[in-house]
Amino acid sequence: MIKRLLIILLLNLSLALAHAEDGYRLWLRFDPIEAGLRTRYTQQIKGIHFAGNSAVQQTAKTELLQGLQGMLGKAVGETKNMAEGVLVVGSPQSSELVASLQLPQLKTLGKEGFVLTTTTRQGRRLTVIAANDDAGVLYGVFHFLRLLQTGQDIDKLDLVSAPRLQRRVLNHWDNLDRTVERGYAGFSIWDWHRLPGYLDPRYKDYARANASIGINGTVLTNVNANAMILTPMYLEKVRALADVFRPYGIRVYLTARFSAPVEIGGLKTADPLDPQVQQWWKDKTKEVYQYVPDFGGFLVKANSEGQPGPQNYGRNHADGANMLADAVAPFGGIVMWRAFVYSNETPEDRVKQAYTDFKPLDGKFRPNVLVQVKNGPLDFQPREPFHPLFGAMPQTPLMMEYQLTQEYLGQATHLVYEAPLFKEIQNADTWAKGKGSTVAKVMDGSLEGHTLTGIAGVANIGNDRNWTGHLFGQANWYAFGRLAWDHTLTSSGIATEWIGQTFSTKPAVLATVRNIMLQSHEAMVNYMTPLGLAHIMGYGHHYGPAPWWDKAPRQDWLPVYFHKADNMGLGFNRTATGSNALEQYHPEVRRQWENPATCDERYLLWFHHVGWKQPLRSGRNLWEELCFKYNEGVDSLHGMQSQWAGLQKEIDPDRFAHVQMLLGVQEQEATWWRDACLLYFQTFSKMPIPARYPQPAKTLDYYKSLRFPYAPGN
Amino acid sequence: MIKRLLIILLLNLSLALAHAEDGYRLWLRFDPIEAGLRTRYTQQIKGIHFAGNSAVQQTAKTELLQGLQGMLGKAVGETKNMAEGVLVVGSPQSSELVASLQLPQLKTLGKEGFVLTTTTRQGRRLTVIAANDDAGVLYGVFHFLRLLQTGQDIDKLDLVSAPRLQRRVLNHWDNLDRTVERGYAGFSIWDWHRLPGYLDPRYKDYARANASIGINGTVLTNVNANAMILTPMYLEKVRALADVFRPYGIRVYLTARFSAPVEIGGLKTADPLDPQVQQWWKDKTKEVYQYVPDFGGFLVKANSEGQPGPQNYGRNHADGANMLADAVAPFGGIVMWRAFVYSNETPEDRVKQAYTDFKPLDGKFRPNVLVQVKNGPLDFQPREPFHPLFGAMPQTPLMMEYQLTQEYLGQATHLVYEAPLFKEIQNADTWAKGKGSTVAKVMDGSLEGHTLTGIAGVANIGNDRNWTGHLFGQANWYAFGRLAWDHTLTSSGIATEWIGQTFSTKPAVLATVRNIMLQSHEAMVNYMTPLGLAHIMGYGHHYGPAPWWDKAPRQDWLPVYFHKADNMGLGFNRTATGSNALEQYHPEVRRQWENPATCDERYLLWFHHVGWKQPLRSGRNLWEELCFKYNEGVDSLHGMQSQWAGLQKEIDPDRFAHVQMLLGVQEQEATWWRDACLLYFQTFSKMPIPARYPQPAKTLDYYKSLRFPYAPGN
Repeated sequence: MIKRLLIILLLNLSLALAHAEDGYRLWLRFDPIEAGLRTRYTQQIKGIHFAGNSAVQQTAKTELLQGLQGMLGKAVGETKNMAEGVLVVGSPQSSELVASLQLPQLKTLGKEGFVLTTTTRQGRRLTVIAANDDAGVLYGVFHFLRLLQTGQDIDKLDLVSAPRLQRRVLNHWDNLDRTVERGYAGFSIWDWHRLPGYLDPRYKDYARANASIGINGTVLTNVNANAMILTPMYLEKVRALADVFRPYGIRVYLTARFSAPVEIGGLKTADPLDPQVQQWWKDKTKEVYQYVPDFGGFLVKANSEGQPGPQNYGRNHADGANMLADAVAPFGGIVMWRAFVYSNETPEDRVKQAYTDFKPLDGKFRPNVLVQVKNGPLDFQPREPFHPLFGAMPQTPLMMEYQLTQEYLGQATHLVYEAPLFKEIQNADTWAKGKGSTVAKVMDGSLEGHTLTGIAGVANIGNDRNWTGHLFGQANWYAFGRLAWDHTLTSSGIATEWIGQTFSTKPAVLATVRNIMLQSHEAMVNYMTPLGLAHIMGYGHHYGPAPWWDKAPRQDWLPVYFHKADNMGLGFNRTATGSNALEQYHPEVRRQWENPATCDERYLLWFHHVGWKQPLRSGRNLWEELCFKYNEGVDSLHGMQSQWAGLQKEIDPDRFAHVQMLLGVQEQEATWWRDACLLYFQTFSKMPIPARYPQPAKTLDYYKSLRFPYAPGN
Repeated sequence: MIKRLLIILLLNLSLALAHAEDGYRLWLRFDPIEAGLRTRYTQQIKGIHFAGNSAVQQTAKTELLQGLQGMLGKAVGETKNMAEGVLVVGSPQSSELVASLQLPQLKTLGKEGFVLTTTTRQGRRLTVIAANDDAGVLYGVFHFLRLLQTGQDIDKLDLVSAPRLQRRVLNHWDNLDRTVERGYAGFSIWDWHRLPGYLDPRYKDYARANASIGINGTVLTNVNANAMILTPMYLEKVRALADVFRPYGIRVYLTARFSAPVEIGGLKTADPLDPQVQQWWKDKTKEVYQYVPDFGGFLVKANSEGQPGPQNYGRNHADGANMLADAVAPFGGIVMWRAFVYSNETPEDRVKQAYTDFKPLDGKFRPNVLVQVKNGPLDFQPREPFHPLFGAMPQTPLMMEYQLTQEYLGQATHLVYEAPLFKEIQNADTWAKGKGSTVAKVMDGSLEGHTLTGIAGVANIGNDRNWTGHLFGQANWYAFGRLAWDHTLTSSGIATEWIGQTFSTKPAVLATVRNIMLQSHEAMVNYMTPLGLAHIMGYGHHYGPAPWWDKAPRQDWLPVYFHKADNMGLGFNRTATGSNALEQYHPEVRRQWENPATCDERYLLWFHHVGWKQPLRSGRNLWEELCFKYNEGVDSLHGMQSQWAGLQKEIDPDRFAHVQMLLGVQEQEATWWRDACLLYFQTFSKMPIPARYPQPAKTLDYYKSLRFPYAPGN
């Protein structure tokens, strides 16, 4: 009785004394779990046998002990014996006990996979977390903790998991002055100025969070690169970060500015075929590896948006990539060479240019080069068809690049769960080797038998206390990691995991929050760029609607270039009668999309200039459908708002208010998008907004007059 | 017994479950206090009678109830009766009970002062927090909580306190893009982009912190001003902040860009004597007050460092200030007009120029104008003599401007407690009306009978989790507020309060941390700019030593201009044979400083060019003294490090490590300062660094080669 009283009091007090729910802990909360479950788990985990003592396994052990203590409310003791109810953790090399279990599942797991299994040895029931190597042990521990956090049954575990992609990497577009390009969560978390002497505790927490979802690499610097990162003063700082990340299985990568040999090397050229240049990169790379022995390699944006590259010297992308690949190869490094290129001069349809440049280079890259391709051919729009390079370069491993930071997806204030966007791309069929040649199979190497594989997510992380600015931005970081590990996971399943770890495992909370998340991407597409529209955001900062914008140094930065509205209709003709970007897709794909009648209406205006009065599948004509979709987007948001409002009693007040306020901002901005876009497109369609929809509150001139010179992330 | 056990367990658990000690809570921690004290306080505060229901009093009540619950471990109940042991809080207007007490102390307290007293009525012992108005109640509550936090006896309270200065204001040099000029604690806490829809919980916590130390105003925007803050889009955002701050007794002020009538008003001129311009400011001010009815007024930097101002139109500072003063006067607003001016052309000694411009204007300003004067005549150096305008403008109220952010004081990484710097200035005697005419008496209006008074602190606050980047930066914010309230408080006393609230009230901890704090300013002066040296920091960013720097658009931004080292000696001759800046001080001050033999050696090189072999009071010649001082500075730092190391068991590991790492960086930088400066000055003195001191580790060329293009705050 007194014991029960104590526990109740303890729990109450812990709530009273807890700090504000500021979101800092992400999905790694490990608070006391519900009493019934706690009792069960406590009986199932009576002690821990954990023999490994490498840095990574020590990390795993600490995480396991702390996580269990947090959730179970008391420390679980360590044991050397194989007693009943012991949790055995380790690899055959690090643990005699694990070795003695002779688990057959280990054979196919590689270095990072793990087994969670319940077994009986000498009549004693054991729970086992086993792997072939340190990293697998770490990932197994985090997965086991996740099972407990989400209230899963651990009585008869029989789970085998290994990553489908090798390099699971965040790309930070973080500058040395701590600004973050397209960052909406404050300053960069890399406090370069105070490194290496001051190690922000955040660095470790960043590493923990990544390790818990299987991310094993981080590119610290912006793809619009600064050569100074390769100077000794900064390499000292990079080393300090790498030292913090290493025990969490995370490797550091850097962006290489192609002109670095000139800028910091004192050479007259950066020509990749110049022997002095090649030697400079070899020497520089060797120096980098002296600071960071497990350095991952270089990420390069070259000859794109003003960045220097091999084309400055009449060379091609393979020449540039291979030079760097040769420099890192002796140390086991890789080069991630971005395919996001578009020429400064060529008037060709911008979405065609990456394919034009890279397709002919297939087979010309060194084996330690990954070509990093954005999900779509334009630039991280709310919706794009898959990038035509997927399936077009069979001899080259392609690395997917997703953008977690919401540059075009509502930026700092919109709740948009991105997993459905990622899944839509991964599930798309390239038809490269017949039906079923999905983008996922290109990405994971299975389609062409590549062994070097990877995926990149442009980070949405900043120094905001909750890491991502919007609390639900955390879900995108989480989903990226989980999908990078296993792209067969579902959007819904990942959401369920994240909600359970972040908010609550109560079925009603799970269902409501998941419902909000799963509809959020489609809602955003509808109120911003329905029916295949793209890139009609504000010029430069990409905040808010500006489909009317027609002043820029180049055509293909202009909304009017992308939507091509005129008195006849709306949309970009990319069929054979237009830019013929469609020719870059395999015939089966092309055939479906080249005919407006069979084209997926989600991509309709991406590929076709459609007449305003053209009837669509709904029976509504294009103008009516546009009105319908914009209103549908805003309506979805009202639904999301009221669903969230219903959670007031289930979510702590801090996080509840945070999300509620942001949904309010999102609702205002969605309305602004709808009204501004419809008023503008109406100047071409010359038809009224049907009376059943709310009419715009302001004039088109008002929306056109708005200016946001200090929109973040620009 | 069970009760004791419970309490022990509760306390242990609260520790175990508490989040990392990230410094977010500042000095407002309100954790459970030591058991003996808790018992005593619990007996002394048996209930609370708090009748006020204004927004400010509601704030005070919430703070009181939460603070007591936190410290005492249980809620204190409210009561309507005047029972034994009741804590009575309120003003005579808001509380019949307080009115009935007829406290004579209230007469002299004004609106913001308060009484804390123990009294007996009808045989019942009462503790009373009383004030004439809401703000006083709030300040009284926070002071009462502070007494408990620091373990003071509250048995026989008899305390009366009222602020000596009216406007106690933070100046945020925060830009609309969230960068902070001279900020070393991350991004601006004002998330303009997401305002007004999203209210960061930090806004309220900022207001709490300020209210707890009596700060009653905040200038939200940079003195290098942006006119956009005065447009409706931003005024909506300003209103949202003002609404959060108001219940904490805090008024919002803005910086006014002098050319706003041209930039956002469409006028052709900003001439302050132009009736259209005057009308524009009147209309704009009226508009501002529609958004923020208790708007405090404008802060202006004009005709300084490229900012526009009245001199662009052939007018003077009084013309400019009075125009704005007339605009805000109908609403009770004030104008804070900065005296930090130096001409773009005049080759006059820069430290003389504010006096030259402003002294002739004495008596010409409207009564609602405060002229805001930096503590010294140059620019927030580690040490400067007091500004000669103090005591030189008897008919004008002068507002002191201190810089809390450590632009020249080690920036992001140095532990420097600034109260001794502030006190040194305040205690300086201007001799304006004979002996005892201290700067403090100018500031508080008592010397000349001014009733409008104020003080400004350039904020050191950013979005770093601990607010100030360096945990000890919090002490400077705290000390500013406490000294703004009562400039007679001592540096040591304020440190004791802050340490007690922030770390521990254990005597050994108090003594050690206080010792570190009290020596830190002198240490920094010694390792950076001893003996009256100034402004020899890196060009532009002001990070690190660069006494050799000799390239800038203007002479008086150059270290070589300020130290004037040559083969003869070192220092700036400001006597009658030099720039004669000394003539701006009253004769008694001048006489002391114009003779090197009587001049305070702390200011020696500020006023004199001294020969390298000139013996100083220590018996050492100038070169030897310079070597001595630089080494003394570094030695002090070693002492501070070892003292901090001794606190490992007394301070939580998070905060202990934070400070320890930063002291490590500071030690490296102090050594760098010493070695770089001595090597450089040695090229003039031609004498060796005495062998008893450590010799520089690198060459002068090495130090001169260092570049820091991404030093923060620039």
